[in-house]
Formats: sequence, C-alpha cells, structure tokens
Amino acid sequence: MTLVIDNIGELVTNAPELGAGPLGIIENASVVVDGATVVSVGAAGAVADERLDAGGRCVLPGFVDSHTHMVFAGDRAEEFTRRMAGEPYDGGGIRVTMQATRAAGREALREGLDRHLHEAHRAGTTTVEIKSGYGLSVESEAETTSVAAGVTSETTFMGAHVVPDEYLGRTDDYVDLVCGPMLDAVRPHVRWIDAFCEEGAFDADQSRAVLEAGRAAGLGLRLHANQLDYGPGVRLGVDMGCASVDHCTYLSGDDIEALAASDTVATFLPSADFSTRQPYPDARRAIDAGVTVAIASNCNPGSSYTTSISFCIALAVRDMNMTIDEAIAAATTGGAAALRRNDVGRLAPDGPAHLTIIDAPSRHHLAYRPGVPLIWRTLGADYVQPSTEHETRRRKASS
Amino acid sequence: MTLVIDNIGELVTNAPELGAGPLGIIENASVVVDGATVVSVGAAGAVADERLDAGGRCVLPGFVDSHTHMVFAGDRAEEFTRRMAGEPYDGGGIRVTMQATRAAGREALREGLDRHLHEAHRAGTTTVEIKSGYGLSVESEAETTSVAAGVTSETTFMGAHVVPDEYLGRTDDYVDLVCGPMLDAVRPHVRWIDAFCEEGAFDADQSRAVLEAGRAAGLGLRLHANQLDYGPGVRLGVDMGCASVDHCTYLSGDDIEALAASDTVATFLPSADFSTRQPYPDARRAIDAGVTVAIASNCNPGSSYTTSISFCIALAVRDMNMTIDEAIAAATTGGAAALRRNDVGRLAPDGPAHLTIIDAPSRHHLAYRPGVPLIWRTLGADYVQPSTEHETRRRKASS
Repeated sequence: MTLVIDNIGELVTNAPELGAGPLGIIENASVVVDGATVVSVGAAGAVADERLDAGGRCVLPGFVDSHTHMVFAGDRAEEFTRRMAGEPYDGGGIRVTMQATRAAGREALREGLDRHLHEAHRAGTTTVEIKSGYGLSVESEAETTSVAAGVTSETTFMGAHVVPDEYLGRTDDYVDLVCGPMLDAVRPHVRWIDAFCEEGAFDADQSRAVLEAGRAAGLGLRLHANQLDYGPGVRLGVDMGCASVDHCTYLSGDDIEALAASDTVATFLPSADFSTRQPYPDARRAIDAGVTVAIASNCNPGSSYTTSISFCIALAVRDMNMTIDEAIAAATTGGAAALRRNDVGRLAPDGPAHLTIIDAPSRHHLAYRPGVPLIWRTLGADYVQPSTEHETRRRKASS
Repeated sequence: MTLVIDNIGELVTNAPELGAGPLGIIENASVVVDGATVVSVGAAGAVADERLDAGGRCVLPGFVDSHTHMVFAGDRAEEFTRRMAGEPYDGGGIRVTMQATRAAGREALREGLDRHLHEAHRAGTTTVEIKSGYGLSVESEAETTSVAAGVTSETTFMGAHVVPDEYLGRTDDYVDLVCGPMLDAVRPHVRWIDAFCEEGAFDADQSRAVLEAGRAAGLGLRLHANQLDYGPGVRLGVDMGCASVDHCTYLSGDDIEALAASDTVATFLPSADFSTRQPYPDARRAIDAGVTVAIASNCNPGSSYTTSISFCIALAVRDMNMTIDEAIAAATTGGAAALRRNDVGRLAPDGPAHLTIIDAPSRHHLAYRPGVPLIWRTLGADYVQPSTEHETRRRKASS
C-alpha cells in the first residue's frame, strides 16, 4: 500500500542532490512512501494508492533527538521553582529523581516513557536516543536500560551520571562499579556509554575510565561536558573519539579547535541552558570554525523538561545566533551525525519514511512562531510508538 | 445542564478568599458550571448533570491576552529570518502587513482571525483584546475593526500604529486623519484607542493628540511605549490615565515611580522582546516598586507571531525574574486589570466559566515544561469561538 503526500508547499529533504541549497529544498513537492520506506521525492502530482493532501504546508524529515533521559519517575517542578527564585543548579537534584526511579517499578517507568514518546512524536521527533542514569545501582540501571531498549535501539548507559548517596565520598569505588558489574548488567540493552565529566560529578580520569570500559565492551562513546564551566571534558571526548560531546555551554578556543579537527559532534542543549539560567553556548563560533553541531532536547525532569525540538530551534536561532537553516540541520542531520547514523534525518528514496508536517508554509515558522505547537502530523518513527490508548489508560487509572 | 469538573489536582482560582495564597489555590478541588457561569468552586466530589474527570490535572482561569494584533493578512517570516541574521528591528515592516491586509478583503481577514483564535483557544486563552493598525486608511481601519468586533468586545483602534507610505513626511496630517475621519469610521466597532509612542512612529505630542481624540469619543485609553528605547511614552500613558502602557522594555526609575503611583498597568510582551532580540524588561524592579503588571502575547506577524501565553510565562520567569505565580497572575488578573475588567481572570461563583486544564499536576509546569503544548482542554471564552470546521474548510480551499 503506497501513500503520496501531495501538495507540499516546501519540502526539506536534507539531500542537496535532490533540491536547492544545503537543505535540499523542493517547492510544490510530493513524497511517495511504501510502508516505512520513501519511494520517491519530487514534484507535486505523483500518484499512489492513498493520498494525504499537505495543503501547501511544509514537510521536513522528522527530528533526531540525540540526547534525552526519558526514563524516569516523578518530577522536579519544586526544584525548578526554587531555582527560578535564585537557587543555583549543580545537578544534585539528579539524586531526587534517582530515588523516585528506583522506587517506581518497570510498569510505571514504561508508562512515563510512553507519555514522553507520545509527546515527542506529536512534536515531530522520529528518532530518539535515551540515556539511563537515574538508577545508579546495578539493578536499577539494568531495569531502566531495558525499559529504554524496549522502545529504541539508541540506548545509552549512563551509570556515571552522578555519584549516588551510598557512594558519596567514594567516587572511585563507584566508577569501579560502573565499569564492572553495572556495565555487565546493562550490556545487552545498550548501544552507547556516556559520562558526566564535570566538577561535582566525574573528573577527566574517572570519565576516561568509564569510556574505556564501554569501548572494551563494544559500546559507542558519548560524553556530557562543559555544561557548568570550562573544563577538560570536550577535549577528552575528542581524544576518545566520542561520537558526540554534549552541552558544550562553555567552549574555549582549544575546545573548538579540537572539535573542528575531529569527527566528534558538538551537541548543544539550549533548553537546558534555558531552564537552568546558564548562558547559551557560542554556536556561531563553533560553526564558523567548522565544527559539526547538533541540537537536542535533553528531555529530563531536572534541567530541561521539554520534548519540543521546535522550542530548541527557536532558542538556537534567538540566543545562539544560528540561522534557522543551521538550527533545522542541527536537529535533523546533526542529530543523526551525533548518533553516527546516515539513514535518518533526511528524506530520500529508499530511506525511512520518518517525517513531520508543520502547519505553516515554510520551515522558517519553526523559529518565527515560538511556543506555538506547529506540528500538524508526524509519520513514522525509529522508536516504538506508544499506543494512542495510553491517555485513556492513564485517565482511567487516575479516576 | 450543569457540569462538574472533578478530580482537579490543583485549582487556581485567583480568588484569595476561596483558597490559599494570592492565587487562591485549592487542592483536590471541583468546579461546577451551569452553561457559561461558575456555580461553585470547592472540594472534590460535587455532583452535577455531567462530569469531566480532570484526572488530577491543574485547572486555571483562562488566560486574558490583553494585547494582540490578530487581524492581518500575510506573514513576515522572511523579515524575521533577515532579522535573526542581524538586521535590526524598527517597526518598518508594519507597512508590509498593511499592504497585504488592505488587499485581503473581509472574508480572508476573518478566516485568518479565526485561525489565530482557534490557536489561542487551544493555548488556554479565553479573553482576547484585538487591535487594528494594519489598515491605516479610513476604509481599511473600519474594515479591520469591524472584523475584530465580530468576535470580541475588547477591540482597539490603532490607526496610530505607523505612518502609512502615502503620509510619509506628513505625520501631523496623518494624525489629523486618525483623530478625525478615521476615528469616526471605526467608532462603532471599538472600545479602546491606542498609539505607538516611539521614535520613528509618533512622538509624545502626536500620541497625546490621538489619545485625547479617543477620550473625547468615549474610548478607553492604552499606549504602546518604550519598546525600542527609553522615552516619554510611559509617563504620557500614566498622565493620560491609560488603562495600560504596553511593552515597557525600557523603564527608567521615573517611569516606574509614575506607574507605581497610578492605576495604569504595565503590560510586558516578552515574546516580542524574544522575537526582536531586544533585552527583557526589568519586571522585578517594577513589581517590587508596586506596579501592577500584565503579560500578553502581542500576537502579530512582525515582532511576535505567537499565541502561546505559556511561552510568555516561561520567558517572564526565565528572563524577567518573575516568579511562576507572578507570571500566572500577570497573564490572568493582570491582563484583566489591563482591560479594566474584574469578571475575567478568576474562577469564582457567578463569574464566567472560562478555564483551562493543563496536562500536568501543578501550575509550575507552565514554566517548567517550556515549549510543550500543555493545554489539555479549554472551556468557554469571551470571544466568538471559531467553528472547528475551519481547518476542514481551509484544507478544502487549498486542495
């Protein structure tokens, strides 16, 4: 059964060979898909078994959200409220979510994850990476990574998120746990390993030990770095050949030079800087130096409780001096590069039919209309889409 | 036919006599409405003919958006894109929208307005003020105010938005037109008069002349002031007894003192500051000095193309140092005060049943979850709600 999406006002393919400019834009376009695969991309008027009239709207590849922590229980609205009243952010609240997550049980974790995925899909995201890091015990990290693996293959083990209470003052012992029994327990469920290289979390040696253990276990490498201050994290990530170093809120000239000379992606998380009142990273300088950049939601209950990539694009344009096209590329092909993927983030024949249709005639509206839920339809996804029943179930459960 | 909204996790009434704190919050609440009127507000478990289970969600009074320019044609995505690439904002693009609006015709203007109202309702807004100011001729101002009056009684004549091309260099002549024939033509359709008192638009004398003519015609007064720089606008607005002075991006100590000693509301438009890369106003200083403040969307195609009050609340909290409760009050009772209304913006017996239910357990999520379309249901409105058919019609028209 083939479907043609026709009467597309503006089609972003991200395939320069198919259309104009680096985003490969085609005006008055159609896309034909057969099940989960794109058959053809071209001028309006193609025919197929079924037709979806885009009504002149803009179609883009679905967003690739390469950095989330979507498996967790509870929320931290009160911490956020205190922070907005002046309390500084230091990541310590991660332990609050850890307690809620450990106590929640698999079914509640999956239900929360489904809720977030449902929201992300409505927001145009079709590929999602999910990190652990709220279990922080062998048992709970195994549980959370397995819940994540139930919906996506882009799973990341992040036992080295913070040091849990029971290891306070014994960070090296905790790193041994992460690199040994915890890694063994999560190994079947994950593709990536990640660590939070930051003052107050894990230093460069500890972070390196975690990444090396992950590499020895056959995992790809990623790193949280330079979120709260300058530090060695970004250069460590480049040295280790990480697919991505994430946050990069504080970038020195050396950091940018190292990134530009590597194939490590700098993943910016502007909504985290928004929700923690950090400054925004100097994306302009990084891009101008030749760094490959991504933007992602960092969806998590502490520092960035959003699933809206449109919101991240608007911030990247307003506050990070990225052009709208750069921000869109960062949220699609950039996210794909951060996951070492070249199938997603673009719309081209034989590729996956993951796309989003916005209720606007051009891609510029993603930044021009901030806060407006512009997504009209999202088709396909790389993750298991939650049943649309979930809201019904939730309402029943709460009544 | 009565309806009970039951199982409300947190109810914001904005009626301190009904609940805790300045927002009059009741936990585990219910609201009973009879048609368009609130019958009772209190503990969960009330009974009525029909029941809507809020599922533990938070209920608030609908937002009062006291500053919009929702009647227009065309968009200015390209100007926005150029601005984000570095071109400064000076309001000159208003003339581009003027040309599109003059050419559009009544039916297209109403269709665009319905689309914006539909969006605003989905975003939780139940009272909306609408300004003219894209006609700028006697005929077109009469048409746009009459289109606005077809949906709301909170209509504002803003012939003094900018000087149209045909009067360039003859601002005083244009002011005579505004104060004479144009005011006569719009008078049946409007409640308020407004002017843009800013370098490049209308100076203090010209703005005063417009407001005085409006007052003589029996209209209430409002003023755009201090958007792009310090100036005499805020103090003029206070002197003239305006219900509200809007923007207030640049507030001197004298401005704040004048506002605090008056009953003129300072209406902040943070999404305009966002979309024009202006600094944000010092709301903290104004509130601490005792100024009554509102926040509004300023929905318009040039400087702030959003209908999302949640987005404005998130910005007010993050970038204007307002507490979440202050921002919510500013978007409800503050907006009502800016319109000299005391019926809307609160939920109390015998008042209008205009409310919004967010898909979250507490009001804090409006700022804590930026960019996420949190509105679950909106009930009632002060304006004519567009038919839900409009999207269907639009799709038909475009196919």
